[in-house]
Amino acid sequence: MNNLDDDLLKRKTIIDDALDEYVPVVFPEELYRAARHLFNAGGKRLRPVVLLLGAEAVQPKIAVETILPAAVSVELIHNFTLIHDDIMDEDATRRSIETVHTKWGMSEAILAGDALYAKAFEVLSYTKTEPENATKCLRLLSKACLHICEGQWLDIKFENNKNISEADYLEMVQKKTAVLYAAGLAMGGILGGGTDSEVSALWEFGIAMGICFQIRDDVLDLITAREVLGKDRASDLMEGKMTLVMIHGLKHGIRLDPSQLTSEKAIDVAIKDLQDAGSIDYAMEKATEILGAGKSRLAKLADSEAKRKLLKLADYMISRAY
Amino acid sequence: MNNLDDDLLKRKTIIDDALDEYVPVVFPEELYRAARHLFNAGGKRLRPVVLLLGAEAVQPKIAVETILPAAVSVELIHNFTLIHDDIMDEDATRRSIETVHTKWGMSEAILAGDALYAKAFEVLSYTKTEPENATKCLRLLSKACLHICEGQWLDIKFENNKNISEADYLEMVQKKTAVLYAAGLAMGGILGGGTDSEVSALWEFGIAMGICFQIRDDVLDLITAREVLGKDRASDLMEGKMTLVMIHGLKHGIRLDPSQLTSEKAIDVAIKDLQDAGSIDYAMEKATEILGAGKSRLAKLADSEAKRKLLKLADYMISRAY
Repeated sequence: MNNLDDDLLKRKTIIDDALDEYVPVVFPEELYRAARHLFNAGGKRLRPVVLLLGAEAVQPKIAVETILPAAVSVELIHNFTLIHDDIMDEDATRRSIETVHTKWGMSEAILAGDALYAKAFEVLSYTKTEPENATKCLRLLSKACLHICEGQWLDIKFENNKNISEADYLEMVQKKTAVLYAAGLAMGGILGGGTDSEVSALWEFGIAMGICFQIRDDVLDLITAREVLGKDRASDLMEGKMTLVMIHGLKHGIRLDPSQLTSEKAIDVAIKDLQDAGSIDYAMEKATEILGAGKSRLAKLADSEAKRKLLKLADYMISRAY
Repeated sequence: MNNLDDDLLKRKTIIDDALDEYVPVVFPEELYRAARHLFNAGGKRLRPVVLLLGAEAVQPKIAVETILPAAVSVELIHNFTLIHDDIMDEDATRRSIETVHTKWGMSEAILAGDALYAKAFEVLSYTKTEPENATKCLRLLSKACLHICEGQWLDIKFENNKNISEADYLEMVQKKTAVLYAAGLAMGGILGGGTDSEVSALWEFGIAMGICFQIRDDVLDLITAREVLGKDRASDLMEGKMTLVMIHGLKHGIRLDPSQLTSEKAIDVAIKDLQDAGSIDYAMEKATEILGAGKSRLAKLADSEAKRKLLKLADYMISRAY
C-alpha cells in the first residue's frame, strides 16, 4: 500500500492546487469561503484521482494537465453534494469540522452548494479534448448529478421503512454514491481515447468500487469510535437509515428503533446485536463479492501501472479504516 | 402588443412541449413531480424565448429545433433558482400555488432544484451546433449560474442593511436576475453564428432587460393587489429587501421598519409614503433610462423581425402589469 499512498498523496496535492486555482475566494468572499469550507475536511480526492487513473489506464502517456479540469469538476460535484446532504441530514459536523449550514446558515449553505455545482460545469469546459469527447463528458457528468439527486431522494424516503430490500438498497447507493465514481472513471476513459468497451468496463468497475465504498462507509459508521469518525457514531442507526447491515439485521429478527437509542449503552447493544446476527460480516462479504465482479471487468484493459493502481485502490475501498 | 402576444404564446407552447419531453416523470416519480411543479405556475417562458429571438436576430433562417435544447436549459436553470429561492425567502406560495418546499418539504425541495440544475446541463448537451459554440454556451450558462448564486447571496446580505447604495443594488440584480437573460440572448447569438460584436450587443441588451424586469418586479410587489400577485403584497418591504424604491425612500427620509408592518393599513401607509416621496416613480424612471441604453445596443444588429420583437419585449418588461 505504501507506493499507492505516495501516489495518492502526490495526486491529492495536484487536485488541491487546481481547486485553489479554479475556485478562488472572490467577491462576495464569504460565499466562496463557505463553498470552499469542506475542501479542508480531510477528503482524499478519490473521485478525481480515479478519473486521472482511468485516463492513464487507456492512455499511459496522457498529459495530466489537459484532463485536470474534468477531474476537478468531479471533486466539485462531490463537495456540492456534501454541503446539501449535510443540510438534509441535519449533521452538525463532518470529519470533526462544522458543516457549512452550521457555520453559515441554511440559505448560505444552499447557495454555497449551488455555487460549486455551477463551478463544476464551468471548470469542465476548460478540459482540453476533442469536441465530441467534451459533449460525452458533459452528458455523463450531468446525468450522474441527476442520479445522485435520485439516490439521495430514495435514501431519505427509505428512512425507517422496514420493507426496503437489498435490491432497493443497492439501487439507491448505486445512484447516490457509485455513479460519481463510475462517471469519473468513464470520463477518464473517454478523455484518454479509450474504446467503447474500455469505457464501459471502467464505468462498471466504478459502480462496483462506489457501492463498496458506501457499504464500507455504512459499516464504519457502526464500528468506528467517535473521535476517529469525526461525527456521532451510529448516526445511520439513529436516523433510521436503511443500510445493508440494517436490512440483514431486520431479516434476522433484530429490533431497530431509533427512538430507543438514547444512550451510548443502547447504541453498543444495538451494534452488538447486529454483530451477533452476522449482519456486519454479511455486508462486508457482499461488498467483497461486488468488488470482485467489478475488478474482473478491468480484464478488458491492457495491463498498465494505472490499472494496477485502480485495482489496489478498489481493495483499499473495502479495507479502509476511515 | 397583440402580435407579440400571439408570437409569445406560440413560442411558450413549443417550450412547454420541450419541457415535457426533456423532463418526464420517471422513477422516483415524486422527485420529478416536485421538480416540475413550478412549470405550472404560469410562467411566461421569457428567458428561453429571448434565446430563440437572439438566435433569429442574427440568423433569421435558423432551425428552431436545433437550438431548442439550449432554450430549455435556460428555463430549467430559472426554475431551479425559483425552488431554492422560495426556500431561502420562506415563501409559502408563488403565483397562487404552493411552493415546492411547502408541498414536499425542505430536503425534497433542495433535491428537486438540484435535479433541474443537472437536467439543464444534460439538455444543453443536446443542442446541435459547432463544437466551439457548445463550449462557449456551457461556459456562459455555468458562469451565469455562478453569478445568480452571488446575486442571491448579496440579496440576502443586503436585507435590512440601510447602507446599501444604488450601485450595490444594481450589481446585485445584474447578478441575481439579469445575467440569465443576458446569457440566454448571448447563447442565442452564438448559436445563430453571430459575430463577437453582435453577441456582446445581445448580452448588454439582456443585462438591461433583466435589470428592468427586476425593478418592475420590485415595483409590482408594492402596487399590485394580493389576488393578482398570487402572494403576499409588499413581501419585499416585510422582509426588509433592499430595492431601488427602498433605497430612494430611505434617502428621502422614509422610515422603513419591517417589524412595524403588521397590518394591511400599516403597509398601505408605507407604500403611500414611498409614492409621495417619488420613490416608485424614481425606480421606474431609472428602469426606463437603463432600458433605453440597452435597446440602443441592438443598433449593432441588422433590422429583422426578431430584433423588432426583442425591442417590443423590452418595452413589455417595463410596462407589464404582472
